[in-house]
Amino acid sequence: METVAIVGVGLIGGSLGLALRAAGFTGSILGVSSDATIAAALKRGAIDQGVSLQTAAESADVIYLAQPISRILDTLDQLGGMVRSDTLVTDAGSTKMEIVQKATKVFGGCHFLGGHPLAGKEARGVEAADANLFQGRTYVLTPRNSAELDTKQTQSFISWLQKCGTSIVVLSPEDHDNTVSYTSHLPQMASTALAAVLSRLPDDRLRVSGPGAIDMTRLAMSAYEIWDDILSTNRDAVDHALGVYIDKLTEIRHNLQTQRLGEDFRVAADAAIRLRHVGVTSESERGLTPCD
Amino acid sequence: METVAIVGVGLIGGSLGLALRAAGFTGSILGVSSDATIAAALKRGAIDQGVSLQTAAESADVIYLAQPISRILDTLDQLGGMVRSDTLVTDAGSTKMEIVQKATKVFGGCHFLGGHPLAGKEARGVEAADANLFQGRTYVLTPRNSAELDTKQTQSFISWLQKCGTSIVVLSPEDHDNTVSYTSHLPQMASTALAAVLSRLPDDRLRVSGPGAIDMTRLAMSAYEIWDDILSTNRDAVDHALGVYIDKLTEIRHNLQTQRLGEDFRVAADAAIRLRHVGVTSESERGLTPCD
Repeated sequence: METVAIVGVGLIGGSLGLALRAAGFTGSILGVSSDATIAAALKRGAIDQGVSLQTAAESADVIYLAQPISRILDTLDQLGGMVRSDTLVTDAGSTKMEIVQKATKVFGGCHFLGGHPLAGKEARGVEAADANLFQGRTYVLTPRNSAELDTKQTQSFISWLQKCGTSIVVLSPEDHDNTVSYTSHLPQMASTALAAVLSRLPDDRLRVSGPGAIDMTRLAMSAYEIWDDILSTNRDAVDHALGVYIDKLTEIRHNLQTQRLGEDFRVAADAAIRLRHVGVTSESERGLTPCD
Repeated sequence: METVAIVGVGLIGGSLGLALRAAGFTGSILGVSSDATIAAALKRGAIDQGVSLQTAAESADVIYLAQPISRILDTLDQLGGMVRSDTLVTDAGSTKMEIVQKATKVFGGCHFLGGHPLAGKEARGVEAADANLFQGRTYVLTPRNSAELDTKQTQSFISWLQKCGTSIVVLSPEDHDNTVSYTSHLPQMASTALAAVLSRLPDDRLRVSGPGAIDMTRLAMSAYEIWDDILSTNRDAVDHALGVYIDKLTEIRHNLQTQRLGEDFRVAADAAIRLRHVGVTSESERGLTPCD
């Protein structure tokens, strides 16, 4: 990997540029974004140069799509006739089935590797980019078959992801989308629903809250533009996860009356501890500044 | 307030001792707890001396009950015949109706003022006590009538709470319990239910999580012994809040199909931002160490 083009230099794209530099990448980092974003990204040192998508396709050996999902789908269409045969196109979209299907249609069997860094914060834009954003985070790759991971370009890209501090997990696009409907999309919906319920309280009641309410409503501040794309490309899985969550809450509500909640608390605490033991950490635990 | 006796020198009681000292309280701080806790509390500097409940009742002008709710109810029974007529008994229990009813029965109209600091973390015990735990936190007082706030002893106690950094809110016991069913108990149940759903995932799927899942499962690590008391003394209100939450999730699940989730996200984000504007902050925002 000698020249990487980041398409969409926002939080994720900008952080990748900063992280590559911090990890010792000495190649060229091109950015494809609006003029204002390119100016901000150059100022942050996240990219070396702003270019058109056409120029990026001609000169980069790795094209990294870090746009919202619907924009990634558009960009794949545009890239169809542009990309060199030895170029790797990869993406950072939060759902994978639609993107991988589109890439297969546009490029055939080669060129493309889907990806999803489990990193982020509510703040958006290159201004919030952070060289440490990927540090200690799971990065899912979703090849259509394992041979896709063995090309020279892909191996080089993966080794840079690892140098940026990520921990690689390989899943099929289907398994990815099913898994994140529980681990990412359900937490978002639970937070949004909770904050929507709390919205009915006036200020003088709302302030009778502790740190727990703050934790549980942080995700509710996420931008809907991002989530609209995520939910509309993973609707069935999210619907199912929401159904499972509603069933569990209904069961807990019933157990509240029979005073048999001890087992629910024990199972939940074990899962919360296990989540921390498999290596996932919060932003604050990593010493990063939370954005709320 | 010259001598305060803290009954139950755990996280809250120990933090009160440390906070009073840090705020310049030069009177005597007595502790009533098990031998092991008294030893740990003395070592932390949270109390000056361990005494029996009888001695505390004879010598303290403020008795601060910082035990779990069921223990507070027991202690009130024991204190019935012990307390001097000029002593203020107050508590830090997370629900107020049962405690205030019991205190009225035991003491008659005087002596008692219910309280609830909206502060805490999952870690328990005097080892986790923190002189800054109350800093910037809402502290609810639940007098049966406003005259109860006007006694000399109560005024002195309130001024020390304020010196410890709390912001005082006055509510009736009923209004308190209804409010916290939404602002505290519902977030706990939402977190427990989410973690219980996530418990079904194996480790290699669970690690496909980001910081959002960590935020949303922190409360799930709370001790059931504490919550058993809270839920059994506020069951109807929690049942109602859970019903409202389940209805909102069901509505969101429906809107997922019709793609009309924008309004849910907007209302939720506004509430999450408003929660932060009424002065509630997370532990990490305050530079304290989270305990997960």
